[in-house]
Amino acid sequence: MALKTGEEYVSSIKSLNLEAQVMGRKTGNLTEHPLVAPSLRAIAATFDGAHSDREETRRLFRAPSSICGEEVSRFTHLHRSTEDLIDKVRLQRHCGNVTACCFQRCVGLDAANAVFSVTHECDQKQGTAYQERFREFWRRVQLEDLVVDGAMTDPKGDRGRRPNEQKDPDLYLRVVERRPDGVVVRGAKLHQTGMLNSHEIIVMPTISMRPGEEDWAICFAIPTNTTGIRYFYGRQASDTRKMEGTRIDVGNPDYGGQEVMTVFEDVFVPEERIFLNREVEFSGPLVERFAAYHRQSYGGCKVGVGDILIGATALIARMNGVDRASHIKDKIVEMIHLNETLYACGIACSALGHATVAGNYQVDMLLANVCKLNVTRFPYELARLATDVAGGLLGTLPSAKDLEDEVAGPYIRKYLAAADGFPAVDRIKVLRLIENLVAGAGSVSYLIESMHGAGPPTAQRIMIGRQGDVEGKIEKVKRLLGI
Amino acid sequence: MALKTGEEYVSSIKSLNLEAQVMGRKTGNLTEHPLVAPSLRAIAATFDGAHSDREETRRLFRAPSSICGEEVSRFTHLHRSTEDLIDKVRLQRHCGNVTACCFQRCVGLDAANAVFSVTHECDQKQGTAYQERFREFWRRVQLEDLVVDGAMTDPKGDRGRRPNEQKDPDLYLRVVERRPDGVVVRGAKLHQTGMLNSHEIIVMPTISMRPGEEDWAICFAIPTNTTGIRYFYGRQASDTRKMEGTRIDVGNPDYGGQEVMTVFEDVFVPEERIFLNREVEFSGPLVERFAAYHRQSYGGCKVGVGDILIGATALIARMNGVDRASHIKDKIVEMIHLNETLYACGIACSALGHATVAGNYQVDMLLANVCKLNVTRFPYELARLATDVAGGLLGTLPSAKDLEDEVAGPYIRKYLAAADGFPAVDRIKVLRLIENLVAGAGSVSYLIESMHGAGPPTAQRIMIGRQGDVEGKIEKVKRLLGI
Amino acid sequence: MALKTGEEYVSSIKSLNLEAQVMGRKTGNLTEHPLVAPSLRAIAATFDGAHSDREETRRLFRAPSSICGEEVSRFTHLHRSTEDLIDKVRLQRHCGNVTACCFQRCVGLDAANAVFSVTHECDQKQGTAYQERFREFWRRVQLEDLVVDGAMTDPKGDRGRRPNEQKDPDLYLRVVERRPDGVVVRGAKLHQTGMLNSHEIIVMPTISMRPGEEDWAICFAIPTNTTGIRYFYGRQASDTRKMEGTRIDVGNPDYGGQEVMTVFEDVFVPEERIFLNREVEFSGPLVERFAAYHRQSYGGCKVGVGDILIGATALIARMNGVDRASHIKDKIVEMIHLNETLYACGIACSALGHATVAGNYQVDMLLANVCKLNVTRFPYELARLATDVAGGLLGTLPSAKDLEDEVAGPYIRKYLAAADGFPAVDRIKVLRLIENLVAGAGSVSYLIESMHGAGPPTAQRIMIGRQGDVEGKIEKVKRLLGI
Amino acid sequence: MALKTGEEYVSSIKSLNLEAQVMGRKTGNLTEHPLVAPSLRAIAATFDGAHSDREETRRLFRAPSSICGEEVSRFTHLHRSTEDLIDKVRLQRHCGNVTACCFQRCVGLDAANAVFSVTHECDQKQGTAYQERFREFWRRVQLEDLVVDGAMTDPKGDRGRRPNEQKDPDLYLRVVERRPDGVVVRGAKLHQTGMLNSHEIIVMPTISMRPGEEDWAICFAIPTNTTGIRYFYGRQASDTRKMEGTRIDVGNPDYGGQEVMTVFEDVFVPEERIFLNREVEFSGPLVERFAAYHRQSYGGCKVGVGDILIGATALIARMNGVDRASHIKDKIVEMIHLNETLYACGIACSALGHATVAGNYQVDMLLANVCKLNVTRFPYELARLATDVAGGLLGTLPSAKDLEDEVAGPYIRKYLAAADGFPAVDRIKVLRLIENLVAGAGSVSYLIESMHGAGPPTAQRIMIGRQGDVEGKIEKVKRLLGI
Repeated sequence: MALKTGEEYVSSIKSLNLEAQVMGRKTGNLTEHPLVAPSLRAIAATFDGAHSDREETRRLFRAPSSICGEEVSRFTHLHRSTEDLIDKVRLQRHCGNVTACCFQRCVGLDAANAVFSVTHECDQKQGTAYQERFREFWRRVQLEDLVVDGAMTDPKGDRGRRPNEQKDPDLYLRVVERRPDGVVVRGAKLHQTGMLNSHEIIVMPTISMRPGEEDWAICFAIPTNTTGIRYFYGRQASDTRKMEGTRIDVGNPDYGGQEVMTVFEDVFVPEERIFLNREVEFSGPLVERFAAYHRQSYGGCKVGVGDILIGATALIARMNGVDRASHIKDKIVEMIHLNETLYACGIACSALGHATVAGNYQVDMLLANVCKLNVTRFPYELARLATDVAGGLLGTLPSAKDLEDEVAGPYIRKYLAAADGFPAVDRIKVLRLIENLVAGAGSVSYLIESMHGAGPPTAQRIMIGRQGDVEGKIEKVKRLLGI
Repeated sequence: MALKTGEEYVSSIKSLNLEAQVMGRKTGNLTEHPLVAPSLRAIAATFDGAHSDREETRRLFRAPSSICGEEVSRFTHLHRSTEDLIDKVRLQRHCGNVTACCFQRCVGLDAANAVFSVTHECDQKQGTAYQERFREFWRRVQLEDLVVDGAMTDPKGDRGRRPNEQKDPDLYLRVVERRPDGVVVRGAKLHQTGMLNSHEIIVMPTISMRPGEEDWAICFAIPTNTTGIRYFYGRQASDTRKMEGTRIDVGNPDYGGQEVMTVFEDVFVPEERIFLNREVEFSGPLVERFAAYHRQSYGGCKVGVGDILIGATALIARMNGVDRASHIKDKIVEMIHLNETLYACGIACSALGHATVAGNYQVDMLLANVCKLNVTRFPYELARLATDVAGGLLGTLPSAKDLEDEVAGPYIRKYLAAADGFPAVDRIKVLRLIENLVAGAGSVSYLIESMHGAGPPTAQRIMIGRQGDVEGKIEKVKRLLGI
Repeated sequence: MALKTGEEYVSSIKSLNLEAQVMGRKTGNLTEHPLVAPSLRAIAATFDGAHSDREETRRLFRAPSSICGEEVSRFTHLHRSTEDLIDKVRLQRHCGNVTACCFQRCVGLDAANAVFSVTHECDQKQGTAYQERFREFWRRVQLEDLVVDGAMTDPKGDRGRRPNEQKDPDLYLRVVERRPDGVVVRGAKLHQTGMLNSHEIIVMPTISMRPGEEDWAICFAIPTNTTGIRYFYGRQASDTRKMEGTRIDVGNPDYGGQEVMTVFEDVFVPEERIFLNREVEFSGPLVERFAAYHRQSYGGCKVGVGDILIGATALIARMNGVDRASHIKDKIVEMIHLNETLYACGIACSALGHATVAGNYQVDMLLANVCKLNVTRFPYELARLATDVAGGLLGTLPSAKDLEDEVAGPYIRKYLAAADGFPAVDRIKVLRLIENLVAGAGSVSYLIESMHGAGPPTAQRIMIGRQGDVEGKIEKVKRLLGI
Repeated sequence: MALKTGEEYVSSIKSLNLEAQVMGRKTGNLTEHPLVAPSLRAIAATFDGAHSDREETRRLFRAPSSICGEEVSRFTHLHRSTEDLIDKVRLQRHCGNVTACCFQRCVGLDAANAVFSVTHECDQKQGTAYQERFREFWRRVQLEDLVVDGAMTDPKGDRGRRPNEQKDPDLYLRVVERRPDGVVVRGAKLHQTGMLNSHEIIVMPTISMRPGEEDWAICFAIPTNTTGIRYFYGRQASDTRKMEGTRIDVGNPDYGGQEVMTVFEDVFVPEERIFLNREVEFSGPLVERFAAYHRQSYGGCKVGVGDILIGATALIARMNGVDRASHIKDKIVEMIHLNETLYACGIACSALGHATVAGNYQVDMLLANVCKLNVTRFPYELARLATDVAGGLLGTLPSAKDLEDEVAGPYIRKYLAAADGFPAVDRIKVLRLIENLVAGAGSVSYLIESMHGAGPPTAQRIMIGRQGDVEGKIEKVKRLLGI
């Protein structure tokens, strides 16, 4: 079966006929909705890449599957080596370069690789047969080249309380009914990136569950158009600029992100789609492995967006006529340095990855967390430096519509002219792109998601504390000092 | 003559009948325009403060004038002591606390204090009579309690070239005709904060002019409704949320900023309103002193907004049920620490201020620049920490309109419930306020303006290099080492 | 009575005939010991300043006393105004400029101002008569121009336990016997800067004591040569270079620091020298006020040393022929910026100081803690930048003795020659001074003491959390949002 | 031929009978000199590792040579794969863990790999036969398991001038005479780490030479005991503690660094030991490749020392009884995070390495520079955090000799007792180790060398600017925006 093109992908999503609550209204025909379409196009780019004219690009987007025997999209690949892990990061940087936003397709990939190894270990220990179910499911994902959302984050209510201590037990998604042929679940998953552009959802627990919390220890996959799922479209800074009908003020003219609050209102999940069910001890490893893969991801995708921000900053400096000033060059070097440090972390946790018992490859847990913790810092400094270089117009530019006004247009063109050879309108485009990333819709992905996606910094710190082998280091000191 | 109330102020602005190009359309009746009204309300708060119920507050907003003999608004006061300079910073922090945005009225105050001392020195050296003109003008400003915009930033075109080397000489505002009774000027001033909420404008040169650049060495004041001035309303991130008719999604429900590109299309300036005209050697001191006052200002106003961001961060932590976690407390302490460091710089450059020859007080030039340079850094870290504590909802919250939907509303309330005693809607309000400041309309004032207002960081670095007495330090080292 | 000269001061210390354990040996005649003499000279500079040729300097070193009616050294002055507080910081910066090290005399000044106001409040509440005793003591200090050490830091043993829970109760200094005419104390005070260069010691509790800990709530003053006190001289990095007989390798040829572990082995304290005794509730305020004054101090003295480090860095850049490189200039501007930010904090907490009930002036508690918290950070960055600019020779220079060798000397001079006009030996001197501050004896004062003197960063963070008015900020947010 | 043991290595160095100018005196018998011996032991550890009891360790220290067909020390290995490059970094971290200082043996390894590929390319282009010579030389190095110093840094004199513009042309090492059988060179190499512990030296040019500078474009290898080479031993902070006869105060009881200024006074180099001679165009690539390898190295060795600093910090926290405090744990996590970020950069530039034309593997140039630039920052923050956690005793501890004094010893033990189970003497050992690294002899390697070794930060920034593909990034932006 052939890999989909971007166009085929869009059609396939369209045929799901999903509906969502958008800006106060129940809304269908989402693929053509101006708030939604840019995010759909961003995922479409992950399909088009597999059909690129450049062989090198095609190869990056494709990989030979170990479970279906065919060449599949790398976005559905179960990693077979450290090279695969490195290629994943390269692929993500490439897609960030193309879209300058979150292209949304990594979370399912990361979920799949985590579920694959954890189900294997659960089966070995508990005698369950989850992995075969999952293989079956994933084989179809690979063959049909589907987009799968990975859903982890529960609302959590009062964070001082465990799932079973909440006033409303639904604040962590849970099984509310057990039937012979499956289970019924209720709850919600927040911050679901790209949910309405997906064919399937893999639902996972959000924390390590304990005995007594079996109803919350549930992992499964279902189609996005399953009865009982409700979608609430999230707002982003400057989101309605996408609805104004001009490509300039939106900053990123073609692509954008999507965040969806997703409610499961007594949704039935058939037995063959369940991959964990009451085995609390495997919820922790599932969360940790998924998180590690996803923290690795940020060392690719955010670096790709960072490249665009650096390029835009260098370009606006040139347009402003200041690109040869030493302090400008120095700031751009600093941006590159920070961005490449993130990339180095993404690459390193891949290069030091290892095979799981199930046979797929897991990233190095320590370095993946180090990677993400840096992602919670450096994009902010990149944004600050871009703001510095870009200049105050970033916050004071008139509307692009004024450019078309016959009275206003000439004034804007006259007074926003800068270095020779760069039309004012191009300068405005670049400024709007930078604005998009530092204080607009793009900042949701580039800044807020860099902070909270794949878990907030404190989650990474906890893992670093655990994985950092402090006792081993103390032993080395004692040996050195003869204590 | 009594100090105006906020309401009287709004009426007075309304009676100016200003018009502007807004989002592609020529627009009048600006005081009621939803994009404009919040910024007008922010300035109105600077009037209402002078009529506060609390005596302490009233006293902070008022000062005895040395030129009109009456008690005037501190926003029109010529500083008479270091206490005055300190009180200015206190006043600004207070107003930032009330409005959580730029209240726009400092720039005229800073311009007036700079023009006052520089005209005096020019008169002494050149035998001109500018200061008396300026006193006359400013006496009226004090007595009528007017809002004055200070306009400095020219478009600058190719930054590698001087004003008289530009392809288009208008890229720095200049005199294009000299008449017996005044001059005609042409050019533009970018990034004019609060321009359309002002009664008058003080126009100043944007850099230190040199011999041969006399036509650009011009300083004057004119009413905002003078013939020939054209206004182009600047966009801000998420600006159109102000037009959606809900107080929640806008984040800051009552107040907001305003940035206006202002074009002077052959505007006549009468002789009695001219305060510098061809005296190139005084353009540098004027720029430096204005800049120093305005860099001091940021040690007050941005600190006031910072207080709000800290309060909102502490409140959302409490609503999330995590306010007692050590890492949360630590982040809030860090935010306070950084914010108070900015305040310390604002206070210090005031406390070490000195009398000018003209008699008003100037801030310490070195520390004022140090103050502003810190402002180009710390608010970014405050924003980053606020984003960290607030959580991912900052980028994924559904529209407030969904709250009113009878199907959607209950789901949102159910799943966004957090710690006991805090309704989901209040949690949303706080999140939207934080979003406003870190990635919305408020970020224009809190982040972009912190970077570029009163000059970008490089401008401060140049002044610090000049004022830092490196040679004196080298001498001390030589003495210590016997070199 | 006249203020002492440096020479008179040295004689007066010599006549105390103090002894200490130094490098494994009981040692007398300390004033001439090469490890001690530099620290004595540093304090002597605080006497010589009061006799400076320059009137401005003399005025900075002197102040009119409110308790003895004479002009006294500012180092023994009870502050009467915010100007006094500001002048204290100026004085400290000046002394840092002269000595490039810790001049040790502030701690007694800070202790005195804290004891003065706390004893007054204790007397008012408890009917004690401590303040009159203290005035009597301090009057003599002023009239005889004495150096007083302030001793606060107890060893603390297991930090998880209160004083009365320690295995060894002496780990916090305490009263072991109460007699009609006084008390007998036992314990130790660590990190006593300049102890052996002092005439008197004010001993204070190290934490806020609680009921049940009355024996540890003791404050008093005694002469340094009191029977039963034992001194253990602390080592510093590269300390023995002071004993090698060359002025070059030591880095700072004339001045240096002194740290002394001080043990009180059943020392008798006469009643008239006791200023707090069992009044546990006043131990907390005493600690907090002393700490605040001392945290203010660091905004002066470390800034003064910072000036020297900046000067040395600028000078070595010139000697290396790279002083015009943009990245070098930029680093020096950054050093100035950070150093002046510290100064701004020192000035600001002074300018916002307030009168105590006793009449002397207390610094602003919040900003004094902010000041010190910055001091735990910025000197490290200054040291890092100095290391960057200075070059690798900082860690690889041969001994100054090789310069005198007839074979080696010419090679060193040939190959360490740099820019014209600077002899290699001067270049070596500057490098050794920088080494002294970033990785030598001077780093004890400039780096380690910046971290821990006046309490470690966590102590400041706790105070900032308490003083930062988080609840007030939350209230402002609620008002803004209508919550 | 078998790999040497540490002991055999020491004997082999001893037999070279090297002499140096040390602290003002001509000195022989260096291997037993207390200033030198610790550095010799550090290199000996790189030999002992190859004979470790643990197979895993042995394997890390050994590699199969492609040029001599035997298993050789990895410290003499020409890298054959990215795995080799990664193993190099692992090996360096391991050695840093063992020695807690610079073990000095990497520079020759890095020089060899650079010379190997550059000579190949030079031969191809210029018809020279350098590589065969080099292979011959290096075969012996591998078979005899020698230590080779790589000497690059010239004194440079006035940095504003090229080599041929210097007042004294010897300030860059150069050929002063050309003979049929070789050349005579004159000049000096500064900062030669481990020079006196080496058998051979590879001398390389320090910058990219240009036409007209052929005499400075010289690369060769000679034995360290060649006639005409003179050594001047560099001082380090607290170096003479190594001569005091106690293992405690020195901090690192067994190991230490060595820096040597090396003068070449008309030294003859035989033709067969010359690897570049007048081919100016290959001097640049040689410098860049060597630098890149050496910048990679710092992502291993400094990380290894960082592990020790982290372990010591965690241990002192435990000894102080504060290891469970949240702020302490947080600081240790931060230290691990920063240290692992450095490691990630070392690993990543290895994993993305590539084969040279000559067949050995070169690291990724961009990421190797990013690695080193981070090394110029993070160790400073690690040192700052360690200082914070360790406490003020770091700067005030009495001499270890006082511990042995019968009067002083018991007082020190009594008052420096902390948490149960940790003798005061062990606490002192750990504090002295931390002092060694943050402000003592170890700081030369851990801080100063981290800044300047393998080039100062500006050198890395220049490379990052060149390698960062700014134009490619601008192109991506233009494509995105349709410019």
